Amino acid sequence: MTDVEIVEVGPRDGVQSVPTWIETERKAELIHALARAGVGRMEVGSFISPKAIPQMKDAEDLVAMLGPMPGVRRMTLVPNTKGAIRAIDAGIEEIIFVISMSDAHNMSNVRRPTAQSMDDLQSLLEEVDAEGCLKMRIGLATTFDCPFDGRVPERDVLDNIERIVSIRQGMELVLSDTTGMATPDHVRALTAECLKSFGDVATFAFHGHDTAGFCVANVLAGLEAGLRIFDGSVAGLGGCPFAPGATGNVATEDLIYLFHRMGLDTGIDIGLYLEACEIALSFPDGATGGHARIIPLKRLMESLDGKFRGRGIAAE
Amino acid sequence: MTDVEIVEVGPRDGVQSVPTWIETERKAELIHALARAGVGRMEVGSFISPKAIPQMKDAEDLVAMLGPMPGVRRMTLVPNTKGAIRAIDAGIEEIIFVISMSDAHNMSNVRRPTAQSMDDLQSLLEEVDAEGCLKMRIGLATTFDCPFDGRVPERDVLDNIERIVSIRQGMELVLSDTTGMATPDHVRALTAECLKSFGDVATFAFHGHDTAGFCVANVLAGLEAGLRIFDGSVAGLGGCPFAPGATGNVATEDLIYLFHRMGLDTGIDIGLYLEACEIALSFPDGATGGHARIIPLKRLMESLDGKFRGRGIAAE
Repeated sequence: MTDVEIVEVGPRDGVQSVPTWIETERKAELIHALARAGVGRMEVGSFISPKAIPQMKDAEDLVAMLGPMPGVRRMTLVPNTKGAIRAIDAGIEEIIFVISMSDAHNMSNVRRPTAQSMDDLQSLLEEVDAEGCLKMRIGLATTFDCPFDGRVPERDVLDNIERIVSIRQGMELVLSDTTGMATPDHVRALTAECLKSFGDVATFAFHGHDTAGFCVANVLAGLEAGLRIFDGSVAGLGGCPFAPGATGNVATEDLIYLFHRMGLDTGIDIGLYLEACEIALSFPDGATGGHARIIPLKRLMESLDGKFRGRGIAAE
Repeated sequence: MTDVEIVEVGPRDGVQSVPTWIETERKAELIHALARAGVGRMEVGSFISPKAIPQMKDAEDLVAMLGPMPGVRRMTLVPNTKGAIRAIDAGIEEIIFVISMSDAHNMSNVRRPTAQSMDDLQSLLEEVDAEGCLKMRIGLATTFDCPFDGRVPERDVLDNIERIVSIRQGMELVLSDTTGMATPDHVRALTAECLKSFGDVATFAFHGHDTAGFCVANVLAGLEAGLRIFDGSVAGLGGCPFAPGATGNVATEDLIYLFHRMGLDTGIDIGLYLEACEIALSFPDGATGGHARIIPLKRLMESLDGKFRGRGIAAE
């Protein structure tokens, strides 16, 4: 049991934005390197139309190549019931479905208003239930800020969550700062409200982008408000291709380093994680970011002092 | 009266690290652009040996070219009494003297232990007093982390501050995260302790670097602990040339944007400030960073909603 759980989104959310084709073997290599570093849960791909996201067209092959991974919960994003069935058939352990909290972003992302995506979620869940019990994660895109409409009213977010938990309880809901324009006070207040109103019928996580340099502060605000699950992308790979001006996902290694500096165990070995970063950095045309990997490893390690450095090193 | 005060260090702390010579006129152009944006206090140069920092060799000429600047308190760094006399003769309003809280960094920076720099400060102040009353700012380098010795013991910092306030009360002391490796919990705790123990005999400020992506979180931690004065460098220009691994100063525009998003008035117009960034970005070989200037101005402005955007725009 770790103090905080990091959900790695790089192999899906990061990789999908890389314009140059990445061979299936290279994707698998990244995923295995992340698993070696101690990542226990990660997005490995999307069961989505190859026309929408060509980079994800090898999802079946990739999942077959990976096979079951002991100690790793493999997650895939699905845009609809058809994708969910593909994920189930492939033997995936967890499905992610994304709904934007702002209509404008949902229209741009999946060409329908948010309310219609709620109906889609309901029919998807009926199908999933018929196939047996799978873990479900709902990405709440534009929870804080919409690239088209600006700040999203808290009331809209809470109403949407109420609808989701009325469809099914016990799912994980990801408060997502899609554009990276959320501020810590906003994250803290809305997270606290979500946990207070729905903390007994849903689990909450935070997904941040570092557009404005606010992500570490936002993660800390979420932590203070009671969150324990945070998304990150290896080497900061990717961004949201449908949110203009949204630069990269927060780098997972920045979060690992932050938590370890605070003495919080993530179960991840930062030295081994930086090796996974090298693979992500080798993808041609990948947009990357982050800070921790730029700091010399020796200095990173020194700064951790007696604090937790990850299970690999602690075991040495 | 603003809610928070931003002290601009770009024309000194940023410019000094640019290896290619910048003409005096160009430096003055940057300073004037910063003043136009509403910066009320800034480092304009160093009265230091041209051998130590060649880029600062035109300090007298620059200050003469600038002349008195209504609404702007001009600050210069001085390494010793000789430098202080040069600053006084040039008509500067405020002097900065830097002492490292760790001996190893002080040795590397000025080739003497911290205690000896305390003696230097005492004799410098006697000289300054003889010349009339000048504002004094003491930069407490490596307040949190030393590039050679790691985390600096809080006791050392508090003992050093006790010595400084015994030399003179009423000065401004700058808690400086020289390497950018401080964490928010460290900043919050030590700042609170400084304000509690010495808040009635000194003013405190925070100077951050964004090496690990922690700077916004650190600034917020300082703000929560009670600080109201923060340093920033235009376009993130510079770093500490004597602290290996210390990447850039936090970008002032990131702080302006952060504070304005929180509804805190800095007195600075972010649109005009971004024009000053363009000048800093045009310096050849200057190491820059930051986030806010990368976000389209229209989006920046939208995200400020009805909140304070700076006096220029508020007046429109």
